[in-house]
Amino acid sequence: MHTGFPLNEACNLQVRKLEISDKSKGFVELLQQLTVCDAISDEDFQKQFQELSSLGDDHVICVIEDTSCGKIVATGSVFIEKKFIRNCGKVGHIEDVVVDRDSRGMRLGKKVLSFLTDHARSVGCYMAILDCRNENKAFYEKCGFKQKEIRMVKYFI
Amino acid sequence: MHTGFPLNEACNLQVRKLEISDKSKGFVELLQQLTVCDAISDEDFQKQFQELSSLGDDHVICVIEDTSCGKIVATGSVFIEKKFIRNCGKVGHIEDVVVDRDSRGMRLGKKVLSFLTDHARSVGCYMAILDCRNENKAFYEKCGFKQKEIRMVKYFI
Repeated sequence: MHTGFPLNEACNLQVRKLEISDKSKGFVELLQQLTVCDAISDEDFQKQFQELSSLGDDHVICVIEDTSCGKIVATGSVFIEKKFIRNCGKVGHIEDVVVDRDSRGMRLGKKVLSFLTDHARSVGCYMAILDCRNENKAFYEKCGFKQKEIRMVKYFI
Repeated sequence: MHTGFPLNEACNLQVRKLEISDKSKGFVELLQQLTVCDAISDEDFQKQFQELSSLGDDHVICVIEDTSCGKIVATGSVFIEKKFIRNCGKVGHIEDVVVDRDSRGMRLGKKVLSFLTDHARSVGCYMAILDCRNENKAFYEKCGFKQKEIRMVKYFI
């Protein structure tokens, strides 16, 4: 399993799993750059953090912290689906990848993807999948992904 | 939550959650029509069934049984992902939908989809998503889904 490790000591960047204290380091504000994500109370954050932590290796959230300013500058998550197909195989679903708009061009997205796919591989997944907009396809191809199929959505609210 | 109910008594079709005895009713052979799915030993099936059952409402497999011949003729699964975005929202991921090739044209796929989306909605998901081949897009549109984004895949084996 991953433990935190310095990405680049000169840049003071650390790639590691989400910690509960990351709420005060701008984790929620970073998610707000991705999609609808209202402010979350400390209580709700703690509850969801514990809920997800209880899933252990089956749900991992990666963050990159700029330790020089104590700010979370990139994140992404992976959860492990267990199937009957592929010899009772596992698939890693990668979700909610975002890099802070002021920290782009530093390959942080690629580092997040590596952390998440390494995790999926280490727990025995036969593949990792993710959904993305067409304009991000080239980025994910650079990370070793290939387009396969389309994504269909049904909103309830 | 759903309990089993007769889909059409005249046709002896029942829509319900997967039961452990469904292995002897052709459940694995049905999955083999979908993708790579080798024979599964009774022991491995039981182990995976219990593993998935332990997830409760967070992982549900729907089957349709033709009770006149005791055969599983359609299936699909949904697992519930918990997020921080969307007010600590939930998403239902629909996977591994297949209808037996001898039972197509009876709207069984639509029934499976309804069962799975009803479940996702009932546990508070804000949306359900699935990935499909382009040629199945029209079917999922009839079930209320719309295309959004593309799916990227990275195989490990």
